[in-house]
Amino acid sequence: VADLRPVAVRTLAGHLERLPGIGARTARALVEHLLTVDPERVRGLAAALAGLREAVRHCERCFSLSEEPLCPVCSDPSRDRSRLLVVEDPTTVWAVEATGEFRGEYHVLLGRLSPLHGVGPEDLTIEALLERVRGGGVEEIILATDPTVEGETTALYIARQLEGDQVAISRPALGIPVGGELAAVDRLTLAQALNLRRRM
Amino acid sequence: VADLRPVAVRTLAGHLERLPGIGARTARALVEHLLTVDPERVRGLAAALAGLREAVRHCERCFSLSEEPLCPVCSDPSRDRSRLLVVEDPTTVWAVEATGEFRGEYHVLLGRLSPLHGVGPEDLTIEALLERVRGGGVEEIILATDPTVEGETTALYIARQLEGDQVAISRPALGIPVGGELAAVDRLTLAQALNLRRRM
Repeated sequence: VADLRPVAVRTLAGHLERLPGIGARTARALVEHLLTVDPERVRGLAAALAGLREAVRHCERCFSLSEEPLCPVCSDPSRDRSRLLVVEDPTTVWAVEATGEFRGEYHVLLGRLSPLHGVGPEDLTIEALLERVRGGGVEEIILATDPTVEGETTALYIARQLEGDQVAISRPALGIPVGGELAAVDRLTLAQALNLRRRM
Repeated sequence: VADLRPVAVRTLAGHLERLPGIGARTARALVEHLLTVDPERVRGLAAALAGLREAVRHCERCFSLSEEPLCPVCSDPSRDRSRLLVVEDPTTVWAVEATGEFRGEYHVLLGRLSPLHGVGPEDLTIEALLERVRGGGVEEIILATDPTVEGETTALYIARQLEGDQVAISRPALGIPVGGELAAVDRLTLAQALNLRRRM
């Protein structure tokens, strides 16, 4: 019984299998695809990966990802500095920004509190957030951590730290996704949506 | 409405979305993962991709993938040259070899006939297969193309080309996968398995 795969194929399959959401089957299909597609496209993907971590750093102010010391939002003087949207990850910043609905600024925690995984307040950018708030000018903080146990815990922890400060603190609304079918929504969301129902 | 993603992130996401079986959602999750994981692992994946097509070529004899001009099977004098297993892709060679059940040699077609996609006999390695057979020494050909319409068509086409030659031609058995549940098997396979039932 022999593994006939060339070393390069084995190495790549091993790397791909370690990625989240990619099992042995998908990894095999991907390798097969990458072996037959135009080599230029494989080189393009390799270069994009190699460049990713070199070209991108954390914004010095909001900790989102950026190619410059300050991200496009933090360096834009027209943004509303009185409103701060606190999120777990840079990807959430990009998603919110793509809606075009928010003109305030962001603060990225770079994670969520997770005692189980050994993530404490000092591992997140909470101290920097408190400094930003205490620097003045911030009137409202929207704690948009994920509606998970760890996300809720993180929001609660930050809200407690800000108890003495003169800022309004809020969480985004929970409910049925727009365009979503009630039957397709998970039980917890459905229960929340019913409890938080609004009179028409 | 702005796309705040750094160019490096956008480029990588674009590359990932073009891969088979990876939608926009998976691509986003992968980018998020690759942005937070140890940079050394991202570099490793990039290097594995960059090296893939450089380190691997087609075997001059069977067209499987190999790091040398001849693949390990074709350069192994102990293999049974009288039996030829014809498959669509190199990955099938690896899968069969991993079973340890086959001691003959392989021939990789590098695809299957597909009039719809403009793939004709001249796009596959059929001519080289006929030459191998006519070179002498081959007694049996197992046409192990996939049990799909295109795979069956390809097997039938090759069988016709070999009509005048003194070789036994066979196809692998169809049926319920070992360890599989009858209820979980697709209708066509189930019908085939019942039609091809064997007396106990």
